[in-house]
Amino acid sequence: MEFEAFTASALADYLGGIADVRARLFEDDAPADLDIAEVGDGNLNYVYIVTNAKAREHSVVVKQAPPFLRLVGKNWPLSCQRMDHEVAALRRFGALCPQHVPCVYHADEKRFLVVMQHLASHRILRQGLMDGVSYPLFAQHMANYLAHTLFHGSDLFLAPDIKKQAMSASVNIELCRITEDLVFTFPYEDHSSNVYSAALPASAIARLRSYEPLRCAAADMKWAFMNHAETLLHGDLHTGSIMVNARETYVIDPEFAFYGPMGFDIGALIANLLLAYFSRDYHGRVDGGDPRAYQEWLLEQAVTIWNGFSATFLTLWREHESRSGKRFIGTAETRVGEAYRAHFMRRLLADTLGFAGCKMIRRIVGMAKVAEITRIPDAQLRAQIEVRCLRCAEALLVQRAALTDIEQVTLLARETLLDKSSFS
Amino acid sequence: MEFEAFTASALADYLGGIADVRARLFEDDAPADLDIAEVGDGNLNYVYIVTNAKAREHSVVVKQAPPFLRLVGKNWPLSCQRMDHEVAALRRFGALCPQHVPCVYHADEKRFLVVMQHLASHRILRQGLMDGVSYPLFAQHMANYLAHTLFHGSDLFLAPDIKKQAMSASVNIELCRITEDLVFTFPYEDHSSNVYSAALPASAIARLRSYEPLRCAAADMKWAFMNHAETLLHGDLHTGSIMVNARETYVIDPEFAFYGPMGFDIGALIANLLLAYFSRDYHGRVDGGDPRAYQEWLLEQAVTIWNGFSATFLTLWREHESRSGKRFIGTAETRVGEAYRAHFMRRLLADTLGFAGCKMIRRIVGMAKVAEITRIPDAQLRAQIEVRCLRCAEALLVQRAALTDIEQVTLLARETLLDKSSFS
Repeated sequence: MEFEAFTASALADYLGGIADVRARLFEDDAPADLDIAEVGDGNLNYVYIVTNAKAREHSVVVKQAPPFLRLVGKNWPLSCQRMDHEVAALRRFGALCPQHVPCVYHADEKRFLVVMQHLASHRILRQGLMDGVSYPLFAQHMANYLAHTLFHGSDLFLAPDIKKQAMSASVNIELCRITEDLVFTFPYEDHSSNVYSAALPASAIARLRSYEPLRCAAADMKWAFMNHAETLLHGDLHTGSIMVNARETYVIDPEFAFYGPMGFDIGALIANLLLAYFSRDYHGRVDGGDPRAYQEWLLEQAVTIWNGFSATFLTLWREHESRSGKRFIGTAETRVGEAYRAHFMRRLLADTLGFAGCKMIRRIVGMAKVAEITRIPDAQLRAQIEVRCLRCAEALLVQRAALTDIEQVTLLARETLLDKSSFS
Repeated sequence: MEFEAFTASALADYLGGIADVRARLFEDDAPADLDIAEVGDGNLNYVYIVTNAKAREHSVVVKQAPPFLRLVGKNWPLSCQRMDHEVAALRRFGALCPQHVPCVYHADEKRFLVVMQHLASHRILRQGLMDGVSYPLFAQHMANYLAHTLFHGSDLFLAPDIKKQAMSASVNIELCRITEDLVFTFPYEDHSSNVYSAALPASAIARLRSYEPLRCAAADMKWAFMNHAETLLHGDLHTGSIMVNARETYVIDPEFAFYGPMGFDIGALIANLLLAYFSRDYHGRVDGGDPRAYQEWLLEQAVTIWNGFSATFLTLWREHESRSGKRFIGTAETRVGEAYRAHFMRRLLADTLGFAGCKMIRRIVGMAKVAEITRIPDAQLRAQIEVRCLRCAEALLVQRAALTDIEQVTLLARETLLDKSSFS
């Protein structure tokens, strides 16, 4: 079947034929006109907000994956399987954390389409951070989301057979390939897809290619990404995949979901907070303001996310072992069990920081940028901020095993911010 | 279909109906009487040697997996899928290393049966080592086998999509579960399946359960075994899975094959050489002999296996990247690429030694023993040797990241052999 994007009237007809969707859109199942707005970013998918024209509090989001890269067109084929991964992950994560995952009303495997909750009063976190908004609950929400999703997909919770079946079912070749290339490989090469801002010193780029400890660390993280099937990940958990308001936090767009290393999701989030932190030196001064208070707030969020994640993850782990009477390490005195838990979390923090470093570097020199960096109009200031991001990322990667708590990371970030030198 | 073991005549009829098997058994396809001997160890499978009674150079091995644990009977069900894993692994490893893997003549999925090359002039390596036989080529053969099998299943060689498909196809829930329990969990618990020899000091057993660095290290290895899907492993590569003579070396019985950490196969082999090394203090003195020369030969084999494996693995890696023009880490100066290779091999040696430690410990205190230990009749001497095995294993596990070359392991083994103290 040749793929054709819906016309508005065809989409309205389609949605009207699905009882679960009608129940969301119409009052008492009474037909009404629908306003349909296409709001996708035009890269991969078609995304529509569908609203009852007479009762605008009734709305849904429709997301459809065409069998090609929308940005390029039918000449760049892309499997629609990504919608299966997204729907499966939304359902799994939604079952674990209903308060942080949009509700799925309807999924159509043949049309590569999902109808889900419209987050009408939320905005993309990245935009909020650029505007300097403080969300009082977001960090604790994300700590909770990460602890529940990462723990419950792993061998610490699932029976070995169930976990292996879940792992096998989540193999996501196409989208993992994008990450393997764009996050872990191309940024360290002289690759045609890289985009360097004009004033970024050549020495900073050379260092990414030639500094052995950094290349070894980045390759370690690539190896872990490709081999360490620890839990079901979101797989693309940057601040553009999170929607927030003062009360609520939702994680969207898990089409990159697969069984991978736990630190990858946490690291993606911390990386994006650090990018917001360093770029704040521009955005925080636009109106003659002082960026420092918000920068400290951003670091506090990283601390709250790691420490909150760690505390909740450990609680889930202890409670599960206490309830089931089975320990991952086998029966042991409490002291021994706790020693392993502490050991496990140190290793997980090191992984997290390594992935955070890779995620920062790809946003500076790789193809896909982030708005908080690209919107800095002053080329010199942008390059200075980019150099700081690269320096911090390098330290996270190379020193990841030595950074034994998240406070060390905040010290590192503050020191890097004060460093006025550039690569020479 | 209810499973019934073949009668000799039914098996002869069955084999006579398969052209590829007839070609092996009969000269000019002329029917002849077959001698059929059941030679299985009675634990899991039925194994038959089938020989042309008139031309005994014509023979095959038939291995059949009943849908239960043969040792116990039909009340202990076990999936026959293990034969699918064994056949797939024999074919894959056979394609990579035909000189070290028995040839598959015929596989019957419905009967859970494989007909393969009869290694008529070879014996089980464990038996040969107990008799003090030196095999001049075995270590180099195993180095070669390990390098080719471990390299060619990994992301260093396979395209990411092919590797992920191979990984998913090799999920081996039932037999991995056996390893997860019997190697990585039960030996550290007060578990009913453990078997302790009479004179083993209580302090040695207590240490396995309570010494935190050891428990953390063993749990790390369990985590790696369950999560690190690096390459297609044999999965049970002890010296009972290797058949040798002075000229040839074959690896048999890969029914535990799955995608796991590379160090697991190498570690299993090194562990069994170390068990042979420590137990040599008994077997080498049986006829009033001096065990030391053969003990040194055993350590030399471990050195040759690791160093030979490492050299061949690196050569395969360099040649593949040179041929394909693609590097795992991305394009880089040779110096940088070599730095990563050295880094990768250090990490792999650490993994290898950690797995070796676990494999030694399970053979001392776990359910499944090895003959070189159980056949020591003197309870005190046996316990002394067992304590040395446990001490060496603990050091391998806890110090694995600090043992940066295989010679350090031989020094450790020699020191442990000289240590006359026992746990107190």
